[in-house]
Amino acid sequence: MKTYRYFLAGLGNIGRSFLEIVSARERILAERYDLALKCVGVSDSSGSLTSPEGVDIPSVIRAKKARLSLASIRGTHVGADLASVYQDLGESVDMLLDATPVNLEGGDPGYTLTKLALSRGFPVVTANKGPLALHFNELASLSDWTDKRKPMLRFSATVGGAMPTINVGVYDMPCAHIMRVEAVLNATTQIILEMMAGGQTYETAVQEAQRLGIAETDPKLDVEGWDAACKLVIITNTVLRQPCSLADVSIAGIDGNTANEARAARVVGERMSLLATAEWDGSRYRLGVAPTPLSISHSFGQLTGAEMGVQYESDLYERITLIARETGPGGSSAAMLRDVINISVGH
Amino acid sequence: MKTYRYFLAGLGNIGRSFLEIVSARERILAERYDLALKCVGVSDSSGSLTSPEGVDIPSVIRAKKARLSLASIRGTHVGADLASVYQDLGESVDMLLDATPVNLEGGDPGYTLTKLALSRGFPVVTANKGPLALHFNELASLSDWTDKRKPMLRFSATVGGAMPTINVGVYDMPCAHIMRVEAVLNATTQIILEMMAGGQTYETAVQEAQRLGIAETDPKLDVEGWDAACKLVIITNTVLRQPCSLADVSIAGIDGNTANEARAARVVGERMSLLATAEWDGSRYRLGVAPTPLSISHSFGQLTGAEMGVQYESDLYERITLIARETGPGGSSAAMLRDVINISVGH
Repeated sequence: MKTYRYFLAGLGNIGRSFLEIVSARERILAERYDLALKCVGVSDSSGSLTSPEGVDIPSVIRAKKARLSLASIRGTHVGADLASVYQDLGESVDMLLDATPVNLEGGDPGYTLTKLALSRGFPVVTANKGPLALHFNELASLSDWTDKRKPMLRFSATVGGAMPTINVGVYDMPCAHIMRVEAVLNATTQIILEMMAGGQTYETAVQEAQRLGIAETDPKLDVEGWDAACKLVIITNTVLRQPCSLADVSIAGIDGNTANEARAARVVGERMSLLATAEWDGSRYRLGVAPTPLSISHSFGQLTGAEMGVQYESDLYERITLIARETGPGGSSAAMLRDVINISVGH
Repeated sequence: MKTYRYFLAGLGNIGRSFLEIVSARERILAERYDLALKCVGVSDSSGSLTSPEGVDIPSVIRAKKARLSLASIRGTHVGADLASVYQDLGESVDMLLDATPVNLEGGDPGYTLTKLALSRGFPVVTANKGPLALHFNELASLSDWTDKRKPMLRFSATVGGAMPTINVGVYDMPCAHIMRVEAVLNATTQIILEMMAGGQTYETAVQEAQRLGIAETDPKLDVEGWDAACKLVIITNTVLRQPCSLADVSIAGIDGNTANEARAARVVGERMSLLATAEWDGSRYRLGVAPTPLSISHSFGQLTGAEMGVQYESDLYERITLIARETGPGGSSAAMLRDVINISVGH
């Protein structure tokens, strides 16, 4: 049996859900994939808890469910520098899982942690799109994305959670020339746009989404289009093989004006969505994110707030569309487990 | 550079299209995948042509495009026993590609060819669902589906052409318990049902589909539901990990009575489709194929005749839907190329 001893950075909804999923599936992991996963360290913004013998997962889950920080658990290194704690684990860790929050100003803490893990030679599974959107070239140069002998870097949770956006693009469409990608990748704006189409103002729709726990206290990342743009940058660097960064994406978010457009779209049977597109212009892909009215016959014209979609049009595989419905953080944490298992079989 | 010397059995639309695709992509195969594909033999129902130095592909394509059999090319072993010709190639072949026609009475010639290749220790890529639907257990026992050290057997072209039905189910949803699969996998019945919804009788719709080259001279395989059932059997054996054969599928095809149902469905805004389903009943999957009215809000309620779809509902990944549009044999031959490339990277 292969054993991975992992350090999980980030204990928000995705990180906690990952611990729950793995705990409940020890047997199937062993039977089906000949795999044991052992958590030797966790961290949140308050500090970190490490144990080469295995962290007591139930107590961590209990604390986080009670909305307590890791610092409330005895033995936690309060406020410790993550990178050094990670280094302390020395030979007793062999995989990093990053579920830290997105930070588009530099990408930390995920960026530094990921770089350190890859440099030390062990694989990384991340659900954090920030480091990839900001530093794709550098992280690729440290990983199997540039050299198969380097440690594996997997991030299928970053582009649509459970939706296998990256895997289908990279593994299921080899040799293809992709002419066009269209994608609805941000659930928060889908829900806000749906409320606005129903007559709410931008302000009340955002407040309602915040009340439901869908929009962040600072909704900027979602409504201004940054989240969708990050995902498009990751698709473009990997599936489309065109090096790019956020600066290459023409971004328009949603705001008060979009409310009128969303209502007008509904009147004519269309649905306004924040659509991310990559279009081949003969020499390169042009990248954009913008609110776009979609007709009911469009593949994404009927998506609900809980659904995301991506569509690849290519010369070899014609048109392949993926749609995923996801109602919580489970899909993203399951995508992290998918990556861990694929790494274990060298894929 | 890795070189695969392949024998391609079957030169119908899919086989010929595969040769064309590969010829046009020699450079991208070398640059991107460090891979060279060399055709050392081809066969059709008239005989086979082998050459350890490489078959002259342009002359084969020319002959087949002119609707001539392989027997018209000098050097062809006319009417030779395929298995023995194949054996003659000895050490100069290392992969079998099977694009022979589906035969549900025994599965040959694909069944014998596939068994022989696997037994001799080299990988097989097949677009022929017959051998898999009839003999899955046996072929699995000879391949990496039961033992990773055995030769790889890949067949992504058999379940929806370019649509990565099997890959998404097997690689992108690990550890999941799938509760329900719904799939529209037969394009011919989609087109016939669409014509009948528009007012045509069953007989004229079938004749029209035959005239367009969509339905076979003997349309039985499609209209009686066998084609869809074969695909469901392959999904069930691989993605759902439940051993099964065609006898385990409750099959209802389309006929004259379905014409009335298709028209009635359209009147209430629904669309009749030949739906394949697998449903977990608490202890096993129940398998069925039947004409089913789908509402416009169903993921497959708006599929056109050129589209197929598959939807997986699971505990971990919630609902993942795949839709593929395909207007010719290109998608299936591209799926064969996908399999060849994935085999080359050990996936």
